[in-house]
Amino acid sequence: MADRSSAPATTAAEALAFTPVHELAPRIATGELSPRTLVEAYLGRIARADPKLHAFVALYGEEALQVADACAVAIAAGHRLGPLHGVPIAIKDLCEIEGRVTTAGSRFWAERVSTTTATAVRRLMGAGMIVLGKTHMVEFALGAWGSNAAMGAPWNPWDLAVQRTPGGSSSGSGVAVAAGLAPVAIGSDTGGSVRIPSSLCGLVGLKVTAGRISNQGVVPLSTTLDTLGPMTRSVEDAALLFAALNGPDPLDPATQPVPYLDPLPALKRGVAGLRLAMVQPEELEGLTDEVATAYREAGAVLAGLGAHVEPVRLEGVSFLNLQRQTGILLSAEGYQQHRDWIERKDAPFDPHVQRRLLAGKSVSAADYIETLAHMAEARRAMAAFMADHDALLTPTTPVAAIPLAEVDEDAPPAASRYTRAVNYLGLCALAMPMGFTAQGLPTSLQIIGKPYAEDTVLRIGWAFEQARPLLAQHRPDLSALLGG
Amino acid sequence: MADRSSAPATTAAEALAFTPVHELAPRIATGELSPRTLVEAYLGRIARADPKLHAFVALYGEEALQVADACAVAIAAGHRLGPLHGVPIAIKDLCEIEGRVTTAGSRFWAERVSTTTATAVRRLMGAGMIVLGKTHMVEFALGAWGSNAAMGAPWNPWDLAVQRTPGGSSSGSGVAVAAGLAPVAIGSDTGGSVRIPSSLCGLVGLKVTAGRISNQGVVPLSTTLDTLGPMTRSVEDAALLFAALNGPDPLDPATQPVPYLDPLPALKRGVAGLRLAMVQPEELEGLTDEVATAYREAGAVLAGLGAHVEPVRLEGVSFLNLQRQTGILLSAEGYQQHRDWIERKDAPFDPHVQRRLLAGKSVSAADYIETLAHMAEARRAMAAFMADHDALLTPTTPVAAIPLAEVDEDAPPAASRYTRAVNYLGLCALAMPMGFTAQGLPTSLQIIGKPYAEDTVLRIGWAFEQARPLLAQHRPDLSALLGG
Repeated sequence: MADRSSAPATTAAEALAFTPVHELAPRIATGELSPRTLVEAYLGRIARADPKLHAFVALYGEEALQVADACAVAIAAGHRLGPLHGVPIAIKDLCEIEGRVTTAGSRFWAERVSTTTATAVRRLMGAGMIVLGKTHMVEFALGAWGSNAAMGAPWNPWDLAVQRTPGGSSSGSGVAVAAGLAPVAIGSDTGGSVRIPSSLCGLVGLKVTAGRISNQGVVPLSTTLDTLGPMTRSVEDAALLFAALNGPDPLDPATQPVPYLDPLPALKRGVAGLRLAMVQPEELEGLTDEVATAYREAGAVLAGLGAHVEPVRLEGVSFLNLQRQTGILLSAEGYQQHRDWIERKDAPFDPHVQRRLLAGKSVSAADYIETLAHMAEARRAMAAFMADHDALLTPTTPVAAIPLAEVDEDAPPAASRYTRAVNYLGLCALAMPMGFTAQGLPTSLQIIGKPYAEDTVLRIGWAFEQARPLLAQHRPDLSALLGG
Repeated sequence: MADRSSAPATTAAEALAFTPVHELAPRIATGELSPRTLVEAYLGRIARADPKLHAFVALYGEEALQVADACAVAIAAGHRLGPLHGVPIAIKDLCEIEGRVTTAGSRFWAERVSTTTATAVRRLMGAGMIVLGKTHMVEFALGAWGSNAAMGAPWNPWDLAVQRTPGGSSSGSGVAVAAGLAPVAIGSDTGGSVRIPSSLCGLVGLKVTAGRISNQGVVPLSTTLDTLGPMTRSVEDAALLFAALNGPDPLDPATQPVPYLDPLPALKRGVAGLRLAMVQPEELEGLTDEVATAYREAGAVLAGLGAHVEPVRLEGVSFLNLQRQTGILLSAEGYQQHRDWIERKDAPFDPHVQRRLLAGKSVSAADYIETLAHMAEARRAMAAFMADHDALLTPTTPVAAIPLAEVDEDAPPAASRYTRAVNYLGLCALAMPMGFTAQGLPTSLQIIGKPYAEDTVLRIGWAFEQARPLLAQHRPDLSALLGG
């Protein structure tokens, strides 16, 4: 492996590639840092690293450089649109962009050109962001480990020797940001698809309350549970993107009529006095010792910051059962979305995804309705529990990234064990690094908030990040790919 | 048939029995008319007429008299609760009343004692109303004609010679009010079950927007489409009951967070300038000539009152198709509600209802989800159409009451042809008499309003009623039952 200290030029470029947006923004505002320089830095890294990492399914390099120059002109002319102006972003290939191919992770849709642009992408463009390209994902967003038999799995950058799971379904978005190929990315989360890759790749990932951010122009999996969310290198970046994305959309009647939420004013208030329920490690099925240790430390850190960290048992709540219940919704709603083609024998579907979707064919309307009724009841019970707490803590995933070869595609994935319940219960959650295993793999804390309380989970995450600035201190060693 | 003019005592009692609540109310307020006198009048008529008419499944005569006396005391003591205080009411046996049997029209539940009281019933009791008893209905509320193979069908009072359909599923509520056995009643409407018996029995029936009135304590058929509503002898009475019933209920999370609506202030404003779209008779499949004639006259009456009555074609809206789509929801959701017992071979279910519910067993989750998506799309299209209109007119049913022996239990019922679409499209509607056939059977106008615009349909109905006071002028001839 190359010695990073022997390559000072690479190190300076690398520092730029790993700088969070909230630190880039003032430098872009003053003109010290040009959007073109930024875009070129990412494109250069992508050219060298992505042949192995396989994060991007499509790159819009030329167009990104043109937009970067346009951003520079606008900013210099006093038309700066805010902290995201001139900042590149990678978009999960589930979001439509007019005139671009949107595959949703499927080779079957390799030539499917979009005729609309997702509202979320339009809002980011409207905030001055530069779309670098689209990222790989699990086919149709239905898989937790990040594998994709037909399109190929992105490579988790924290281990260049053994291919490990990037987490899914927003696998490419996780790898792109973790490897410094983009400063931030958009993922989607129906059962954990923002948080799991954020966990396994060592990022901040925000799963918003369903209905908070428009899904117009996003290929649906489950119209009940689908959400878009940011994947970033800092909590403040997640807050900046959330601020740009949230709010009702007339084009998506499923966006909820809750007021627009700006999480920034209260972001840095700290956690003194907040009541954090902490699910005890002994209650968490499948938790590995290393994740449990980092999790206990995270609880101690938050307590040290003045939060009331209260150990809780979740009476009557089984993550395993909620994972299964969520599975009924995902397969039934996913099958309904894809029924017109998913049984085609001549189509190059990932056989595991195809099997998961076909499981939805045999779900009866009665069982589906009963699941929705159970979900409503479980949400009421959870609301009663959460009434006494500002947030609920769990690890995001019970394990760190495992070797891709060890994935059991047929079993209920351990990766989504603690995440799916959050979607099912109608909550929001922030995933963020809480430590590293002895092998140097990230572990992740899940801060679960009440419905529409994204500001609270971001505020807790920001305080934790100040105490444990893991993303500022650690980055994957890509010198073997990037050279000196 | 007895000569009514020879029985002046009966005629005076009869006049009382057919007086609408809004005319009874001031007489009760002054003490001129005691609640006990009223209750006795209805109980006397029930004793004589109900053995044939079969409107009531349970009578609470003794308790009603006790409550009547308590009401008189409270009113005399200056504790009058408003226009409904001391007024009797009949309740469809789908509503739970604690300590009472609730059959939902099923012999299978002949001894099912309720442990809760429906919020709607509590609100009526809280307004000072006196529950006379519970009324017969189609088993589990799934039938349009009013038949009930196991419990017996109520007899439509407009023809004592031939047993004609009372309309369903709120058959007993329709017959009770039409025959002067109760001044008003509560029905429920999932695909027309308030409006169809109101049409065939010659009453005013209000189908409210789903979510307007609490369904807590109401045996569910379709949690998506179920609504409770008043069945009355005047539009003002429907407005009075709606005013008592509507509003969010913390016990029913499906009640919608729309503001409480008082329809009374604007009730008597008239229809001058209102834009009424009138579906042309030629567009209405299955419409009989007599209903078409009365319908045309109704349109002319409203135009004469100053409304802009605009003939419309419903491009792309097929009542028959929407009736079928609604059927998918009703059977799937109904089966889910009743799946634990509906297949029992030893239970005395109405075979037609059992067959309709079992049809829901084979509905797949995918087809159900697709139906919900179609419904949402159809609601958006309808909202665009309704943007230019204050209401939409159709007949309530294409036919007047048919002989019970002619009912085809296997065919899609003509009775619900024009009503189901209103539930499916998320609208509200008022059914009210618009004329009589040569045989003396009532025909009915359906005034369809925008979601949550119950005040508008009541206002239009009130104006029409002033011009065509059919309920004040006509009543079924029950002298053969009531004697002299």
